Amino acid sequence: MATRCSSFDLLGTAGAARTGVLHLPHGSVPTPAFMPVGTRGTVRGLTPRDLRGLGASMVLANTYHLWVRPGHEDLRALGGLHRFMGWDGPILTDSGGFQVFSLKEHVKVSEDGVRFRSPLDGQHRHLTPELAVEIQETFGVDVAMALDECIEVPATRDRTASSTDRTTRWLHRQLTSRRQPDRTALFGIVQGGLFTDLRVAHAQELASLDLDGYAIGGLSVGEPQETMFEMVEAVTPHLPTDRVRYLMGVGKPLDIYGAVLRGVDLFDCVLPTRVGRHGLVWTWHGRMNMKNARYRLDDRPLDAGCTCEACTGGFSRAYLRHLYVTDELLGKRLLSVHNLHFYQDLMRRLRGAIGAGDEAVSALGAQVAAASEPAPEGA
Amino acid sequence: MATRCSSFDLLGTAGAARTGVLHLPHGSVPTPAFMPVGTRGTVRGLTPRDLRGLGASMVLANTYHLWVRPGHEDLRALGGLHRFMGWDGPILTDSGGFQVFSLKEHVKVSEDGVRFRSPLDGQHRHLTPELAVEIQETFGVDVAMALDECIEVPATRDRTASSTDRTTRWLHRQLTSRRQPDRTALFGIVQGGLFTDLRVAHAQELASLDLDGYAIGGLSVGEPQETMFEMVEAVTPHLPTDRVRYLMGVGKPLDIYGAVLRGVDLFDCVLPTRVGRHGLVWTWHGRMNMKNARYRLDDRPLDAGCTCEACTGGFSRAYLRHLYVTDELLGKRLLSVHNLHFYQDLMRRLRGAIGAGDEAVSALGAQVAAASEPAPEGA
Repeated sequence: MATRCSSFDLLGTAGAARTGVLHLPHGSVPTPAFMPVGTRGTVRGLTPRDLRGLGASMVLANTYHLWVRPGHEDLRALGGLHRFMGWDGPILTDSGGFQVFSLKEHVKVSEDGVRFRSPLDGQHRHLTPELAVEIQETFGVDVAMALDECIEVPATRDRTASSTDRTTRWLHRQLTSRRQPDRTALFGIVQGGLFTDLRVAHAQELASLDLDGYAIGGLSVGEPQETMFEMVEAVTPHLPTDRVRYLMGVGKPLDIYGAVLRGVDLFDCVLPTRVGRHGLVWTWHGRMNMKNARYRLDDRPLDAGCTCEACTGGFSRAYLRHLYVTDELLGKRLLSVHNLHFYQDLMRRLRGAIGAGDEAVSALGAQVAAASEPAPEGA
Repeated sequence: MATRCSSFDLLGTAGAARTGVLHLPHGSVPTPAFMPVGTRGTVRGLTPRDLRGLGASMVLANTYHLWVRPGHEDLRALGGLHRFMGWDGPILTDSGGFQVFSLKEHVKVSEDGVRFRSPLDGQHRHLTPELAVEIQETFGVDVAMALDECIEVPATRDRTASSTDRTTRWLHRQLTSRRQPDRTALFGIVQGGLFTDLRVAHAQELASLDLDGYAIGGLSVGEPQETMFEMVEAVTPHLPTDRVRYLMGVGKPLDIYGAVLRGVDLFDCVLPTRVGRHGLVWTWHGRMNMKNARYRLDDRPLDAGCTCEACTGGFSRAYLRHLYVTDELLGKRLLSVHNLHFYQDLMRRLRGAIGAGDEAVSALGAQVAAASEPAPEGA
């Protein structure tokens, strides 16, 4: 590769946990970092200004959805995804593979790529590794993800091994087909299912390719947290220390905390916005379910210690409960803002704790555990 | 009445059109004014800060909906509606009558009040004139509306006359039952259906009662615009000039313009938010339907001359169309903001034009007419 548009500065460690800065064409991202998910080029209900306000520095969007609507050629004509969604910070897109493979019965995989019928418009489409890169480069995103084969979990060892090999062959095709490595970084994805040795072998193989960044894929798909941690712990020691590491689709606060302890830098997950829309929030005094009758006459803010718009806008828990009960848009918006702010706060605390050393990291673990329990009565 | 908590200063006129200031316990409202509708204590998707930002000075909420959920006793315990919804400016509530009478088959009217079965919770409820005032005083709003009988339009002259009489008897009971005239103003409602003489007689009768403010009800229920204007024009000359005049539930920009020409000061309508959620917006260069394919590759802002969040946030028409097509929350939010901003801008222009005189008012009429036509191709 002649040019590279991304770099990673490691600033400190505490055990295997790392803090650093990921430099990308549209800005720098302090890590560990969490990317809010803007599936169709919008984080549900929030403006880019809202996202900046709650502390997000980088967002994720979904290639599959944006490929189908509005389409990458339209996005090219409109000046790219940044301009389209009004977000001038770094953007990472997934490869579209995960969504396509989720279609199951409508999918036909071959060495060439994936054929499928899109439920959104009924059209037959063919996603190849080369096309996945082309689409993302057309979006003009900071980070494109390589197309990988996503198989069911658990799968047999043979099937997992041969699928992982195909993912590697696809990656090679994509490294060759890239047209703008100076504008869009390409991250590879370590696969290997739930087989530690396959994971290690794949990590080593990808490490030898000196990629822009390294993702860990195929996890957070229903396996126990412990298994997920095992896989992460097996993989990260084999990845280059001067490249960012991204655990795709993870997760709950304790998942993120545990993965950071095992050397991961970057995360994305729909959880904070999705559960927010369903009335569930995290606070440092515990999880709260806003539909709960205990908040009916509770005139305190959601979290008096929180600085987000939902907590400082003069809204009581009783009001937020009312918005949930009446299915009002403002409720979905405010609880999404709060949860995303909580996640950004979690990442800030992680960065601070890693900078401060082992003791701070372990103290933070107790706080994250408390935030993951139901809030005690009266809290 | 011993005390009064509202007053109206007439600042200028142009023909029958008036500009002034309505003073209320929670602030002053320059008129002509438009109140965004926050049915359940929230203007769909927007925070009070958003409402301030787009220039709203007073909002409307619905007594019926808030009576059922969360209930006026809960609202009392929570410190009233202002605190509940986080809005510290003036609030007006309707009486709940319009919603109750809309239930039709489940409604039984007597001299005492209205019995009905609430579809929201299946409970049998009984709304009397006294209770309607009590509920609104418990909310602690700046303006309570008297409970009036709402009948079908068109109705016979006899039925209309006897219903209007009942509305007057109910008003007397409410004037007597008020407990906090120093905190919550009570506006009466001129009825009389589509009969000019009944309208005039009722206006004169209510005028003699020296009320805090005067609403015109029973219009904008399907009658032609011309008929609505006729009724307004018949009524306003008989209302005291030193009291505010409120045309309930009206309307489109040209309805508002025409009613202002006929001496109305205050308006509310769900239209700007409701049609915004369905992709329709007003601009000074015409109405736009954001689902239209012509905006697919249109990278201009909605209205380059508009200062609202949707027009200045870096969003193209193509993006707003995409948000509509994909049914994204942010689209509903941004188009609601834009339309409410347009309405506030309309009211600002009306106030300015009335201050400047007849010529300015009639020039504005041409602008409002242009804004009401479909935007020309290329605009």
